Amino acid sequence: VIFAAAKAMLRDGPLLGRRILVTSGPTHEPIDPVRYIANRSSGTQGTAIAEALMSLGAEVVFVTGPADAPRPIGAEVVEVETARQMAAAVDAALPCDAAVFCAAVADWHVVDAGDSKIKKDAAGTLPSFALAENPDILATVSQGDKRPALVVGFAAETDDVIANATAKRLRKGCDWIVANDVSPATGIMGGAQNAAVLISADGADPWPLMSKADTAHKLATRIAEALQ
Amino acid sequence: VIFAAAKAMLRDGPLLGRRILVTSGPTHEPIDPVRYIANRSSGTQGTAIAEALMSLGAEVVFVTGPADAPRPIGAEVVEVETARQMAAAVDAALPCDAAVFCAAVADWHVVDAGDSKIKKDAAGTLPSFALAENPDILATVSQGDKRPALVVGFAAETDDVIANATAKRLRKGCDWIVANDVSPATGIMGGAQNAAVLISADGADPWPLMSKADTAHKLATRIAEALQ
Repeated sequence: VIFAAAKAMLRDGPLLGRRILVTSGPTHEPIDPVRYIANRSSGTQGTAIAEALMSLGAEVVFVTGPADAPRPIGAEVVEVETARQMAAAVDAALPCDAAVFCAAVADWHVVDAGDSKIKKDAAGTLPSFALAENPDILATVSQGDKRPALVVGFAAETDDVIANATAKRLRKGCDWIVANDVSPATGIMGGAQNAAVLISADGADPWPLMSKADTAHKLATRIAEALQ
Repeated sequence: VIFAAAKAMLRDGPLLGRRILVTSGPTHEPIDPVRYIANRSSGTQGTAIAEALMSLGAEVVFVTGPADAPRPIGAEVVEVETARQMAAAVDAALPCDAAVFCAAVADWHVVDAGDSKIKKDAAGTLPSFALAENPDILATVSQGDKRPALVVGFAAETDDVIANATAKRLRKGCDWIVANDVSPATGIMGGAQNAAVLISADGADPWPLMSKADTAHKLATRIAEALQ
């Protein structure tokens, strides 16, 4: 820990002077005071990316939902719970030279999540929740006035990974998509390894299965090259 | 940690020879491979209760959902994710002399939670989940053939705490209900302190605000008296 803190102070490398935003972790969307909808994300990959960017000299703003992974030492950490809070924190963190949207953000929130616990009633009637779309942080930043020079999104897919991620890149307007196959059989979700495909204007570049730390360093190196 | 492990081996006290089941933590109910519905529960109170029971000599079977709190050292720990898994683990753990149902179990699960990620569609159509009731673990055990001599339930309430918890005790058929006011303003949910009301056939006994460890010791002492 002390070594990492010292390294953060002695920052140097190709990203020196660059300010980079990284989002990480899940969001939690309240249903009522005791229940919420969550996305599976340990935050491991996001923390590793922030650390890799800092090891190349970058200043990192780290906006994180309630993740299990430790926060990256040396980053400016902003803790949020919901997608709407994350959108506001991201907006406040701009301008940046690059942004890496690694968080697993909920697509929907529960409308009028109340201060009273929803009770199970004796008749067995099931509750229903009205859902509304959350702000699309990746599209908003990619198409907005404060767009960083490089915007990197993530896509967690279970089917047609490359086709879905390629379409997502165009639809959102970001530069790159790091696509993952998160089918339960892969063990990537919550695991230590990742097998990513980097989607850019040049097409799909599949990376081999490697640790999340190695995935982070490969991505950070590519970001440093792109910002040269 | 070593001290706690040694204490567990040198077990003694009024609960020596008693086998007690404790459930703890939240359950997670999958929506799809990347999303789930969760209950807010850190598992802090459940772990404290298991430790307090062991400190009085009990053998503890600890059935826990994905909680943040450390697992009680010296207990037989069974890890589960969903309410249905918890129900099966509880059934497998019986018979016991007493059971303390401290877990925040989801009332509902999503029917046909799939292996494919639900996609946000371009038309902005919102998804809907069909919900079904989960097994009622407290009622099933309280009214079942393998009923322990003492069954303790928990009630997390936001309104009319004593009235709701008193009704819950009768409806479920358990002996005691430990009722908490989990309104956000109380700070009990996820916090270090608890203000409980013990509901029994004798009525409502409100306990003062105290640490979750002290709440656990008070409850364990009451359990030891009841099992004399």
